[in-house]
Amino acid sequence: MREPFNITNMVRAGLDKLIPYDAHSYPGIIKMDANENPYPFPEEVSRSIGQLAAGDLLSRYPDSEAVELRRAIAEYAGVTPEQVMVGNGSDELILNILLTFGTGGRVLITNPTFSMYKIHSLVAGARPIPVPRRGDFSVDVPALVCYARQPDARVIFICTPNNPTGNASTLEEIESVLQQVNCLVVADQAYLEFGGADCVSLLNRYPNLIIIRTFSKAFALAGLRVGYILANPDVLRQIKKVKQPFNLNSFSQAAARVVLAYRDVFNKQIRDILQQREELWQGLQNIEGVTPYPSVANFILFRTNYESKAIHRGLLEKGILIRRLGGPELPGFLRVSVGTPEENKLFLQALAEVLQEVGRDAK
Amino acid sequence: MREPFNITNMVRAGLDKLIPYDAHSYPGIIKMDANENPYPFPEEVSRSIGQLAAGDLLSRYPDSEAVELRRAIAEYAGVTPEQVMVGNGSDELILNILLTFGTGGRVLITNPTFSMYKIHSLVAGARPIPVPRRGDFSVDVPALVCYARQPDARVIFICTPNNPTGNASTLEEIESVLQQVNCLVVADQAYLEFGGADCVSLLNRYPNLIIIRTFSKAFALAGLRVGYILANPDVLRQIKKVKQPFNLNSFSQAAARVVLAYRDVFNKQIRDILQQREELWQGLQNIEGVTPYPSVANFILFRTNYESKAIHRGLLEKGILIRRLGGPELPGFLRVSVGTPEENKLFLQALAEVLQEVGRDAK
Repeated sequence: MREPFNITNMVRAGLDKLIPYDAHSYPGIIKMDANENPYPFPEEVSRSIGQLAAGDLLSRYPDSEAVELRRAIAEYAGVTPEQVMVGNGSDELILNILLTFGTGGRVLITNPTFSMYKIHSLVAGARPIPVPRRGDFSVDVPALVCYARQPDARVIFICTPNNPTGNASTLEEIESVLQQVNCLVVADQAYLEFGGADCVSLLNRYPNLIIIRTFSKAFALAGLRVGYILANPDVLRQIKKVKQPFNLNSFSQAAARVVLAYRDVFNKQIRDILQQREELWQGLQNIEGVTPYPSVANFILFRTNYESKAIHRGLLEKGILIRRLGGPELPGFLRVSVGTPEENKLFLQALAEVLQEVGRDAK
Repeated sequence: MREPFNITNMVRAGLDKLIPYDAHSYPGIIKMDANENPYPFPEEVSRSIGQLAAGDLLSRYPDSEAVELRRAIAEYAGVTPEQVMVGNGSDELILNILLTFGTGGRVLITNPTFSMYKIHSLVAGARPIPVPRRGDFSVDVPALVCYARQPDARVIFICTPNNPTGNASTLEEIESVLQQVNCLVVADQAYLEFGGADCVSLLNRYPNLIIIRTFSKAFALAGLRVGYILANPDVLRQIKKVKQPFNLNSFSQAAARVVLAYRDVFNKQIRDILQQREELWQGLQNIEGVTPYPSVANFILFRTNYESKAIHRGLLEKGILIRRLGGPELPGFLRVSVGTPEENKLFLQALAEVLQEVGRDAK
C-alpha cells in the first residue's frame, strides 16, 4: 500500500533551515536597496546592445566557453582568458565553487557579510561557519586562520569591499590569510570598481585564491546577470566539472562585451557615484541620531537610535526602499545604496522626517 | 608547516567521475547537432525583442518571481501561475530539483536518455541509477517501479519525447508510474511542441509529478536560456529554497513573453519542421545501410553498418555537424536534428557519400 504523498518528507536533509526567497515588489518606488547603478542606462550603449538581439544569437545555444567575453574581461582585469570563468551572476559562481569544493566540508564566512555565502553553503551541503569580524568590521585574520586549520575547512569567503559594512580588507590582510591556510580563499570583489584593493596581483602567487567580480554594480547590468571568476586555470578546470555548459546566455555575453567597450561612459558614472557617496555620508552625519560608517563601496551602512524596522517602514511609506539588516550582528543597522543626487536628497530629507516621527511615537 | 597546495586534493568526493564539458566550435558549419529551431529567427519578433534592451531592464535586478512571464506561460500551458517556476534553461531546473530532493539519495534514469540527468545527479551528490529502456526504447515501467520502491529512491526522470531516441511515453505509462511510486517523477517535455502526449492533465491528480519544458527548441530561444517547471505549488515552494533569487535575467524573461505573443509565427515553423521530419526520415530510410528510428521530436536517431565515429567525422569534413552517441547503450548510433529543407537535402547527400567512402575504406 502506497503512503499518501507528503512533499516535506521528500525534501533532503539540511534544507530545513532554508526559507524560500520571497521578493516584494514596490512599483514606482525609489530603489536604494540593491546597490545597483542608479543612473539612467546610457542610451548609446543600450542602442548598441539592442541591435544584438537577432538571428542565431537568439535561436542557437550560447558559446559555452564564452570565448569572446572572457577575452574582453581578461583584458579589462589584467589576467589571461584562461584565468576567467563567467557565470549567470555571481550567485551561480558562488554555488558552483561550493559544489566543487565545499560539499561535506566547512565554509568559513566573515560575518557580517553577503548573505548568499551561507545560503549557498547549505544548498551545496556544506557547513557554514561564521567567523565574526572585529568591531570595526575588519577581518579577524588570526581567528580565520585558526578556523581554517581545523579539519574539513574548505573554503573561506572574504567580501572586499564588504557588503553590507562598506569597508575593504587590505592586500596585506588577504595575503596573510593566503599564506597561512590551505583552503581556497574567495575574495568577492563585486564592489571593486568603487574602491578597495584589487586582489589580481596576488593571483599568480597564490593558487588557492579565487576572485569573484560582476557586471551588476558599476557596469549597470544587474538585469542581465553577468558575474565572473578570476582564478588559476587548474582551479577553474575543477569548477568546470559542475558548471552548466550553457550557463550564461548569448545576449548577456554580448551585452557585457558592449559595456566593456563603452567603459569610459561607466567610469564617468562611477566617479559621480563616488562623489555622491561622500555627500550622502556627510548628509547622514549631519542628521542627529544617525551614525554612518565609512564606505569604499556604492552604499553606506548606518544605524540610528531607533528600531531599524520602524525606520525602514517609515521610509517605505515615503516612497523610498532601503535595506534593513537583520540578525544579531547588526541590530538596528540599515544600508542605503548611493543614488542619484536627487534620490539622495529625497532620502536624507525623508530619513530626517521619519526619525522625528518615530522619535515622537517613542515618547 | 603548510603542505604545498594541490587543487585535486581540494575537490570534494564524488566529482572524480565528472569530466569538464569542453565545447568544440566549428565556425560556418551546418549545425544539426543540438535540436535547435533551424529557421531564421523571425525578424518581426527580433525587432520587438531588441526594443526591450534599455533602461531599468538592464540596470536593475530582475523580477525574482518572474510574475509576468509565469502568467504568460500558465496561460500557454493551461495551468495557474502558482504552478510555474522559470529557470536559466532546463539545466538549472534539473540541478535545482536534484539539489532539493536528490542529494544523498538515488535518482532513476531511463537510459538511453538526455545526459544531464546523470551529470547533475553527480553534481548534486545523488546516485544516478540507470533503468534501461526496452529494445523499442519504451520505458520499462515494471522495472522502474521496482527500483523506485527501493530505499533512498527519490527522483525518476522520464524524458518524453525522449532525447535521443525520439519516441514518447504514453499518458497511461506515465500515470502508471505515478500511481505506483512515492518518489518525484520528472517528465522532461522539452520536445512536446513537436509531438507526444502533454502530461499537464496529470498535474492536478498527482502531487509528485514535475513537468519540465523549455523555450530552447520549438520557440527558438536556445541562446537566451529559458526553461520552466510545471508542478504542484507545494513542490515549487521546496525547490524555491535552493533556487537562486535572480536566476533568470530580465531580458530573457521579457523576450520569452514576446515569443509567446508571436506564438502563431512559431506554430507555422513547427508545422514546417514536422513535415521536414517526415521527409528526412524517408530520405534516411532510402539510403542503403541506414536504419532510422521513428521520431515524434525534431530530431531522428539512426544507425549505420559502420562505426559512428567515421560517419560523424566524414560529415564534419563535408561541413555538417550531427551528434554521435557514445556509450554501450547506443553503439553505432547517431542523431540528426531536423534542419531546413536545404540543410536536410545537403545532409542526406553528404551522408550517402560518406557511407560510400567509409564502405570503400573498410574493404
